[in-house]
Amino acid sequence: MELESHSQTEKVSETVILPSWNPGASKRALIDFVARVSLHDSPEFVPIPERIAVFDNDGTLWAEKPLYMQLAFVIDQIIAMAPQHPEWHDKEPFKSVIKGDIKAALADGKSSAAALLAVTHAGMSTEDFDKSARLWFQRAQHPQLKRPYTELIYQPMLELINFLRINGFKIFIASAGGADFMRSVTEKLYGIPPEQVIGTTGKTRYEFHDGKPELIKLAEVDNFDEGPGKPASIHKFIGRRPLLAFGNSDGDYEMLEWVTSQDRPHLGLLLHHTDAEREWSYDRGSHVGKLNRALDAASRARWILVDMKKDWKRVYPFH
Amino acid sequence: MELESHSQTEKVSETVILPSWNPGASKRALIDFVARVSLHDSPEFVPIPERIAVFDNDGTLWAEKPLYMQLAFVIDQIIAMAPQHPEWHDKEPFKSVIKGDIKAALADGKSSAAALLAVTHAGMSTEDFDKSARLWFQRAQHPQLKRPYTELIYQPMLELINFLRINGFKIFIASAGGADFMRSVTEKLYGIPPEQVIGTTGKTRYEFHDGKPELIKLAEVDNFDEGPGKPASIHKFIGRRPLLAFGNSDGDYEMLEWVTSQDRPHLGLLLHHTDAEREWSYDRGSHVGKLNRALDAASRARWILVDMKKDWKRVYPFH
Repeated sequence: MELESHSQTEKVSETVILPSWNPGASKRALIDFVARVSLHDSPEFVPIPERIAVFDNDGTLWAEKPLYMQLAFVIDQIIAMAPQHPEWHDKEPFKSVIKGDIKAALADGKSSAAALLAVTHAGMSTEDFDKSARLWFQRAQHPQLKRPYTELIYQPMLELINFLRINGFKIFIASAGGADFMRSVTEKLYGIPPEQVIGTTGKTRYEFHDGKPELIKLAEVDNFDEGPGKPASIHKFIGRRPLLAFGNSDGDYEMLEWVTSQDRPHLGLLLHHTDAEREWSYDRGSHVGKLNRALDAASRARWILVDMKKDWKRVYPFH
Repeated sequence: MELESHSQTEKVSETVILPSWNPGASKRALIDFVARVSLHDSPEFVPIPERIAVFDNDGTLWAEKPLYMQLAFVIDQIIAMAPQHPEWHDKEPFKSVIKGDIKAALADGKSSAAALLAVTHAGMSTEDFDKSARLWFQRAQHPQLKRPYTELIYQPMLELINFLRINGFKIFIASAGGADFMRSVTEKLYGIPPEQVIGTTGKTRYEFHDGKPELIKLAEVDNFDEGPGKPASIHKFIGRRPLLAFGNSDGDYEMLEWVTSQDRPHLGLLLHHTDAEREWSYDRGSHVGKLNRALDAASRARWILVDMKKDWKRVYPFH
């Protein structure tokens, strides 16, 4: 009788932990891992200050299709600034952005992206940039879903972040996205404060305006948080190796590899976008969030491949 | 009767808050500031997540005389490595370091320092460097005081850090010292975890050794956290302007200036080393921890000048 009621409780517990995750190997791996590092009688117990988890952002915590949110921001800023820049109407990549042809705008690759970033992410104070990013997040809508971008975050990931948090983990973002862009909204969306957001950063210059010192954003990359730059950035910002890393693309390869080759307990996870109906289905061939090399490595490296379609009961909070 | 007993309690409270601080303007400014931002009915109340305080380290949290601790570490490492480097006996700056003549070793300035840093802070994994720094802190002693360096931290500052912490502040270090060097010991000394230590960092390279990925420290500065580099680093790592900054030298000038020119409540403090008997007395003329420009600015900028001799009852924890 007692045993039965115990197992009944156990079953109920698994339903209320991570409620938007379907029962299965992914959910079990997450719960087991948290138990292994946090239960005092576990041989793999890790003290609370060392329980660090890092999450990629684009395609891991929020949607990245059809465009990275930050690129949508860039486009909207260019369009809003265009009336003050008549010269842009004859000048690439601005001309194509204004026409709405992003593919053409980015056709020559990095130099176009750099030109667009230079006018939208540099030449203003860090505080003015923060204001413009906040304003954009308040107003902008996803072109297909007709929802504010701030709603396009993954409900199962919010639950996972909170599940880790209540078990003593400190949560960091480690993303190739701009740190200043993400920081304008991560506290509101995920409860992750700015100081726990690691991203790509630009250099700044300390300058006086109206007698007050400000940091002016420059069009020069300072920290590039992608690929092997992820472990380097995590070391620089956090100073210790996280126990858990969660990504979704080849840009997360080295982060997962570094986290999962330490002697301490560790868990690497990849979100596999398999759900064309509720979200998108993409991997090896995608421009955004390409998952190829990391997909090949997953089983060999024992990374958990989270299958969005099978593993998630819900995708977005509003579903 | 009631009023009297209230004021009695008030008096007792001021003794048990910051017990190593003598009554006076500095202590009052600290207590008043914390009350202003943390009491719910205060017009200047600031929500907990925004309560960030930054502290310089050398000369603010730990002693910096006669040499920066990190320089003492460099010297000890060079001496320990010398048997494997017979060529150093004829080569500056190593030759002078081995002889114990630091002045001569550093005579030609930056290039010597860079050569010494290159062999002691580069060419090993971040984890191996961490081990060697920890080992040094376990063994090394201050040459004059014959005490472990880890005891040469300021008791009044430990109390201040804890006083801020219990009132909702998150404490960061922002120092020109090496982040990896400081991080090996700040949690133990101050309860400040590695991820809240901002310092000067070197570049790293992601490499495989014995089939495992590591970050190898390179002899190239990545982030320089001094002067105007302090506000820039604080923005990069924290992403918001702290309310309180505490330094002790001209290298903290811009950090204090930036923190104390915002519209939100703020407090800037400088530790003035005035105590030749219990510690050291130095300011405008000192090679280490030079306080000149910031000393001139203090009264104009309303920075609190903490007078070690007058304001501190004790200096070190062991006193």
